[in-house]
Amino acid sequence: MTTSQAFTLWHRARLVTLATEQGWGLIDQGALLTRGDRIEWVGAEADLPPGLNIPERHDLGGALVTPGLVDAHTHLVYGGDRAREFEMRLQGASYEDIALAGGGIVSTVAATRAASDEALWQSARQRAHALMAEGVTTLEVKSGYGLSAEHEARCLRVARRLGAELPLTVRTTCLSAHALPPEFAGRADDYIDAVCQWLPALHAEGLVDAVDAFCERIAFSPAQTQRVFEVAHRLGLPVKLHAEQLSDQGGAALAASFGALSCDHLEYLSDAGIAAMAQAGTVAMLLPGAYYFLRETKLPPIAALRASGVPIAIATDHNPGSSPTLSPLLMLNMACTLFRLTPEEALRGMTQHAAKALGLADRGRLLAGSRADLAVWGLKHPNELAYAFGQRPDCRRVVAGRWA
Amino acid sequence: MTTSQAFTLWHRARLVTLATEQGWGLIDQGALLTRGDRIEWVGAEADLPPGLNIPERHDLGGALVTPGLVDAHTHLVYGGDRAREFEMRLQGASYEDIALAGGGIVSTVAATRAASDEALWQSARQRAHALMAEGVTTLEVKSGYGLSAEHEARCLRVARRLGAELPLTVRTTCLSAHALPPEFAGRADDYIDAVCQWLPALHAEGLVDAVDAFCERIAFSPAQTQRVFEVAHRLGLPVKLHAEQLSDQGGAALAASFGALSCDHLEYLSDAGIAAMAQAGTVAMLLPGAYYFLRETKLPPIAALRASGVPIAIATDHNPGSSPTLSPLLMLNMACTLFRLTPEEALRGMTQHAAKALGLADRGRLLAGSRADLAVWGLKHPNELAYAFGQRPDCRRVVAGRWA
Ligand SMILES: [Zn+2]
Ligand SMILES: [Zn+2]
Repeated sequence: MTTSQAFTLWHRARLVTLATEQGWGLIDQGALLTRGDRIEWVGAEADLPPGLNIPERHDLGGALVTPGLVDAHTHLVYGGDRAREFEMRLQGASYEDIALAGGGIVSTVAATRAASDEALWQSARQRAHALMAEGVTTLEVKSGYGLSAEHEARCLRVARRLGAELPLTVRTTCLSAHALPPEFAGRADDYIDAVCQWLPALHAEGLVDAVDAFCERIAFSPAQTQRVFEVAHRLGLPVKLHAEQLSDQGGAALAASFGALSCDHLEYLSDAGIAAMAQAGTVAMLLPGAYYFLRETKLPPIAALRASGVPIAIATDHNPGSSPTLSPLLMLNMACTLFRLTPEEALRGMTQHAAKALGLADRGRLLAGSRADLAVWGLKHPNELAYAFGQRPDCRRVVAGRWA
Repeated sequence: MTTSQAFTLWHRARLVTLATEQGWGLIDQGALLTRGDRIEWVGAEADLPPGLNIPERHDLGGALVTPGLVDAHTHLVYGGDRAREFEMRLQGASYEDIALAGGGIVSTVAATRAASDEALWQSARQRAHALMAEGVTTLEVKSGYGLSAEHEARCLRVARRLGAELPLTVRTTCLSAHALPPEFAGRADDYIDAVCQWLPALHAEGLVDAVDAFCERIAFSPAQTQRVFEVAHRLGLPVKLHAEQLSDQGGAALAASFGALSCDHLEYLSDAGIAAMAQAGTVAMLLPGAYYFLRETKLPPIAALRASGVPIAIATDHNPGSSPTLSPLLMLNMACTLFRLTPEEALRGMTQHAAKALGLADRGRLLAGSRADLAVWGLKHPNELAYAFGQRPDCRRVVAGRWA
């Protein structure tokens, strides 16, 4: 530890370090030293190294401190909402009725294209603030409701602006292969051609950190997915995949063969898919909000994932059609209640393993050398984060070593 | 309408009146006139009666206005929490392990008895504030974790204090027949004798608005429930019942024979129970939070309740063991997602029908003559209240005609 620069002390904290592979890594009467945007030292306050120059001290009054939450799968930028469609479905409307009334994903595409840049920004900003209010310090944002070079770029620029203007790290993902836009109806391969053409341009503009696709009978085939991934590979961009949500398409194994950061949803994941993910070091991103909202009954293969050592992450999957939630804490509860994760697995899923799913090695645990992104909670024990549902505990955030 | 007293105008509102039996009763560009704690007039602002003296006007800026929410089934006053038990269960602990570690309802009884009056008050006050933050203006609070004359009285006094000190109507329910306290182990009939003795004393102290029991194989029998209800009947107190949650005990029909305000849970409700409730005018109080948290799979008979014209209410059932939620809005979503209620049915379930479940005829809809309890939302349409889950929309409350 060099001592030539000034430290900041965060003390009188109950630290949830997640430092070891199992267990909360609790440190009662703990303290953190940060310098700039990094954590320099973590431990019991009584063990604080002597003789340091510490001009700035923050007394946390016994609060619980976890790593800042990482929401690593969201579709945060879009126009409109789907509340009317939700209501119609509960009133007994069929999918055809809803389509005739202009509902479904095409309604979100139309509303997104019709929305001004400013309207997209304002709504996305509000959503990001809701996530930040529950401790999120790093956020992934996917495109996928623009579905043209112009509108995908607009959405990704809004995502970049979130990262530039809010105290938050934003990672962008190009998900142009999300759904077939109406102007390509019946011509999925032509649409994939178009995506493969605009992806390099979006990347050249600095808008893309990773590339995603929706591989499913109702979306794109493994062959179409592979074509998108090959372009990503040529550009040096990591990939991830919406895989095996409604059926087993072998998408997870395909993604793993490209060294995917994560495969997401995974209710129908096969043993072969698990083995491929384990070998590639791919994270299993489980999305209990979509499982709940779609009333799915087939659980992702949690026990087999655990047995194979595949890291399990959890995210909100915020989107207007299948997961209109902005509560990471509720996702922790749903991961436990619906998927039977332990509260510790759930928290690791939104910190350590979520960071890994974004390729970010510098956060998700409270370790010396990590980025100083913290969530400071008005709670006594980390199991309370997952136990209550629909809670609003006091939550303050430290981002890059500063109150945010 | 007399005009000798001053009116207050609440205008530029989108009113969700629920005035008719079906439909939201939406009034765009609506206005309300209140005087004192009552609504005097509801309508389109353009139809406002001329010539009134209106010294006070509140411009609601186009906000959505619903009746204040009524959470008509909560166990809000208790000591401790059950987060550790939640964690143990997910780590694979058996019920015996948990009992040996001091868990289960007896742990809450012990923590409640050990808590000071001040500690009970502070924790209940915090919980009430969380409910108020989502639009609750009327709240039911049950005893049932004290389980002795002394401790049941302490809990009910805290409930009364909530009503006295917070901008909120509180209705208290004596649920001494909730569980068997350890000192009566194996002597359920003796415990019911004791309850029947202390109930008149609690009532004489003004602590009881209604009487409840838990009629279930793991709690009290119909015969024991009936003995408690007979005392309530002699005291002129209305009854309600935790009925048919885990099995069909015929509790609903028993409660209906006492003219019960509500029967609550009802997953195993029989046709005979429905018929008895319909005839008695008893409300079906559904509790989707407990259904979710306990991972139940048997749905309450929603279609049969609808067909029989039994009013359906929704509540949080806030309690530390089976429904640790403080979000009435999440309950609206769960009522729709899990129980397939429409968003309008869900909202009526937490306004009009919840008020009926408390025997309060003066609230739950926006009608002339009703109490002026309003929730003012930063939303555009009432279907948004149920569509999102884990949301935190802007919410202000008007209680008895005043901002609260
Ligand atoms: Zn998604
Ligand atoms: Zn209850």
